[in-house]
Amino acid sequence: MYAVTITDDQSLTLGEADTPEISSTDVLIEVKAAGLNRADLMQRMGMYPPPPGASDILGLEVAGVVSAVGDEVSEWAVGDRVCALLAGGGYAEFAAVDEGSVLPLPDSSSFAEGACLPEAMMTVWANAFLRCGLQPGESFLMHGGTSGIGVMGLQMAKLAGAGTIFATAGSQEKVDACVHLGADVAINYREQDFAEVVEAKGGADVIIDMVGGDYVQKNIAIAKPDGRICNIAYQDGFEASINFLPVLMKRLVITATTLRARPNDAKRDIRDAILDDFWPAVIDGTIKPMLDTTFGFAQAADAHEMLSTGGHIGKIVLVAD
Amino acid sequence: MYAVTITDDQSLTLGEADTPEISSTDVLIEVKAAGLNRADLMQRMGMYPPPPGASDILGLEVAGVVSAVGDEVSEWAVGDRVCALLAGGGYAEFAAVDEGSVLPLPDSSSFAEGACLPEAMMTVWANAFLRCGLQPGESFLMHGGTSGIGVMGLQMAKLAGAGTIFATAGSQEKVDACVHLGADVAINYREQDFAEVVEAKGGADVIIDMVGGDYVQKNIAIAKPDGRICNIAYQDGFEASINFLPVLMKRLVITATTLRARPNDAKRDIRDAILDDFWPAVIDGTIKPMLDTTFGFAQAADAHEMLSTGGHIGKIVLVAD
Repeated sequence: MYAVTITDDQSLTLGEADTPEISSTDVLIEVKAAGLNRADLMQRMGMYPPPPGASDILGLEVAGVVSAVGDEVSEWAVGDRVCALLAGGGYAEFAAVDEGSVLPLPDSSSFAEGACLPEAMMTVWANAFLRCGLQPGESFLMHGGTSGIGVMGLQMAKLAGAGTIFATAGSQEKVDACVHLGADVAINYREQDFAEVVEAKGGADVIIDMVGGDYVQKNIAIAKPDGRICNIAYQDGFEASINFLPVLMKRLVITATTLRARPNDAKRDIRDAILDDFWPAVIDGTIKPMLDTTFGFAQAADAHEMLSTGGHIGKIVLVAD
Repeated sequence: MYAVTITDDQSLTLGEADTPEISSTDVLIEVKAAGLNRADLMQRMGMYPPPPGASDILGLEVAGVVSAVGDEVSEWAVGDRVCALLAGGGYAEFAAVDEGSVLPLPDSSSFAEGACLPEAMMTVWANAFLRCGLQPGESFLMHGGTSGIGVMGLQMAKLAGAGTIFATAGSQEKVDACVHLGADVAINYREQDFAEVVEAKGGADVIIDMVGGDYVQKNIAIAKPDGRICNIAYQDGFEASINFLPVLMKRLVITATTLRARPNDAKRDIRDAILDDFWPAVIDGTIKPMLDTTFGFAQAADAHEMLSTGGHIGKIVLVAD
């Protein structure tokens, strides 16, 4: 099969790889579209190795058509239109994945749109809802409001009845997009101190952050009593000097998670929660995938360049010819 | 009434104060014994002011006899032997407290023993169980294993069916006490690197710490995947340089709480949980208060000196004549 491969100088090229074998609980998906994630950039640089047993091909989510199923697979059949969360292997003609990480692609969704959903929706659910327990009426701050995760975080928080929804973004165009997606207060962090704005409006019960570095203490400062702060990445660095006094006095929770290393059972639980709580809204169009740009698999390097530059709103997706 | 008061030079003396007035939901307790807590040392130094509305007299827990009840009090009657968690005011002849913060003193417990229980048991429950969700079979690290909190943490974790129970302490005598209280692995932190010992034995699912400073990163290092670390104080300092990479990769929770500033309803919930889950074990003697030394109220300064020096095992208590 074809696959995007990483050369010795860390550039990307369209090459060949063995079609993955499937276990008895796996489905094989003919990939029609593969969503990009920032983790792909790190993995390409050698900084985010795939977990044991996972493909070393890039790509954490795909949409496509089921082309084979393992003996024990009960949920899916050959020909089903699906999207899926992967531990790796999405930038390829075929990808194998446990059936519990697969979601049904709505009839109304294109493959490219479907590839925008699994990683973002499962990440938001696992962090804002499962880990942080976001409740109706609670205020919510989504950093990176127009990132792939951010556009889903804003829509899902809105649908779940969050109170004041804050978002940060880096341009006026992105601020406008955040408001369109459900933010009550969208802050251009290049022009305003987000912490001052959020503090002046009462603070946040739940904060989802991917910036880290200096943001860690700022998030602590603006969290409300019993607030929960969850990092899904630390793009500005894992190291920070922290004063824990407000953590103690406000009884805060500071946490961080990734999806990738979790066992299949945990991913299935998250998938099931998405299907119950949010998939009906995807089907009826209340929650919309936000697709910025598509590239062919042969243009994966250009797609990565665009993702690093950061001018996009929502997802960048590779699509098959 | 008499009360221990703080002089201008931060020394303690037995003086006079107004007997507290009670609200309709308060009980007035004639204090027979008042437990000491490290927070008292901080408050004496001006670093831990009482929350709004609380007495400015020291003392976060007492045992005694109910001497008056507010109009709406339904749980308690004059003459009841009780112990109670306070937001302040324990070092005095009388203390007022919401009826939901009061526990019945078992017939078998002296007042001095009863004054060892409320703050420690409620703190352990609020942190190890409510905030960190310690489950049967999970490994548990209790720092300061012979502190007032530690001696209860070890006994309550054991009773709740925790897996491997680790404790740290600062002398061989204290290490022996930790083992007696239920620790499977007790570590003299002056002789061994606790992190190496815990890591070699598989790590900890839940860690309760009051040290802070350098311990924060060490706790992160030895926490198991999905582990929870809760600080109830930061005796070595609130500031620490943290590398969050293992927090992300292991999906850890870092949190901290205090009881004092919580509203009465929250304290009542914690009290009720203690009554349901652990009070029967106090009554039948499975969980034992660990009383180190008693002092008269006029010797409060000596009691504080002993608490700061740290040679005790369990609680130091002031007792009425």
